[in-house]
Amino acid sequence: MTRHIAIVQGHPDPARHHLLNAMADAYAEAATAAGHEVRRIEVARLEFPLLRTQEDFETGALPPGLEQAREDMRWAEHWVFLFPLWHGTMPALLKGFLEHIFRPGFAMEYKKGGFPKRLLAGRSARIIVTMGMPVLLYRWYFGAYGVRSFERSMLGFAGIKPIRENFYGLSFADEKKRSRWLDEMRDYGRRAR
Amino acid sequence: MTRHIAIVQGHPDPARHHLLNAMADAYAEAATAAGHEVRRIEVARLEFPLLRTQEDFETGALPPGLEQAREDMRWAEHWVFLFPLWHGTMPALLKGFLEHIFRPGFAMEYKKGGFPKRLLAGRSARIIVTMGMPVLLYRWYFGAYGVRSFERSMLGFAGIKPIRENFYGLSFADEKKRSRWLDEMRDYGRRAR
Repeated sequence: MTRHIAIVQGHPDPARHHLLNAMADAYAEAATAAGHEVRRIEVARLEFPLLRTQEDFETGALPPGLEQAREDMRWAEHWVFLFPLWHGTMPALLKGFLEHIFRPGFAMEYKKGGFPKRLLAGRSARIIVTMGMPVLLYRWYFGAYGVRSFERSMLGFAGIKPIRENFYGLSFADEKKRSRWLDEMRDYGRRAR
Repeated sequence: MTRHIAIVQGHPDPARHHLLNAMADAYAEAATAAGHEVRRIEVARLEFPLLRTQEDFETGALPPGLEQAREDMRWAEHWVFLFPLWHGTMPALLKGFLEHIFRPGFAMEYKKGGFPKRLLAGRSARIIVTMGMPVLLYRWYFGAYGVRSFERSMLGFAGIKPIRENFYGLSFADEKKRSRWLDEMRDYGRRAR
């Protein structure tokens, strides 16, 4: 079954030498080769001011620089997010991007007095996070709270299910590990999951 | 005992009509009246680009617009953070501010192969968060992960202890509740805690 996939590359550095870029490429190439349709969003290359007020969140216009990205995300049935862990959470730039994208009418429909309607039901997501510490340390000592919060308060809250996650820690320089990680990405891409 | 206090107002809206401003004012006035020294940082009024690369994090210069803020935070023995909850975590602007402030040499000293040295030991913090949902919902259903992550991966990791928190949900329009919340702020300010 052909699926629509949006790959959101969330590293704030527009230079393309990061491992996350290689991982996004591997996923995209394998997905395309398997017949899925892929659109890519490079957050670092988009131009937008950060959201400043609740009024703008509720009724303001989306910055023009984000219109194509929102359209691509709406089009997709499966979202792949890639980002490095900065102080336990996604970088501010990616959060700033999502604050715009997840406005009322896209992710949720807010109703007076009732529980908001989840507008993203039917979509799935994968979250790919690199970190400069051992994964176990992040999971057990830091509780992985930063990623949990993204899953629970943004994605899951808006109806996205399932949400799968991959954490990759340290060993960026280990060629054998990198190569295994890229193989994993190709496998996910082929299966659009 | 006189204490040095930095109040970090993290609402991204530079307009000063938010409840968080009234709370920061109440805290600051009571602290000053009790003989403590207070410096205030309004993140929304600072000019700075977001951090983009790990190299900049490690070795880049701090944006000039943040030098006074970093100096004020270094000077303080107690930090008070105020922010609204946006999708379960602090707004991107505040995270972007902290990504700059918490560079190596300020929060942590990174050593090859060893556990980083915590440079902020001896300081304490209070986190004040307003949210558009009942506090219990955030604590139990959302696990308060966004605030947990800030406490664990940034403040606690750098040695800050204790970290106290206050969550205020809904009822912003309820004059009686607002007035009780402001009284709480005055009480904390007097005691510099």
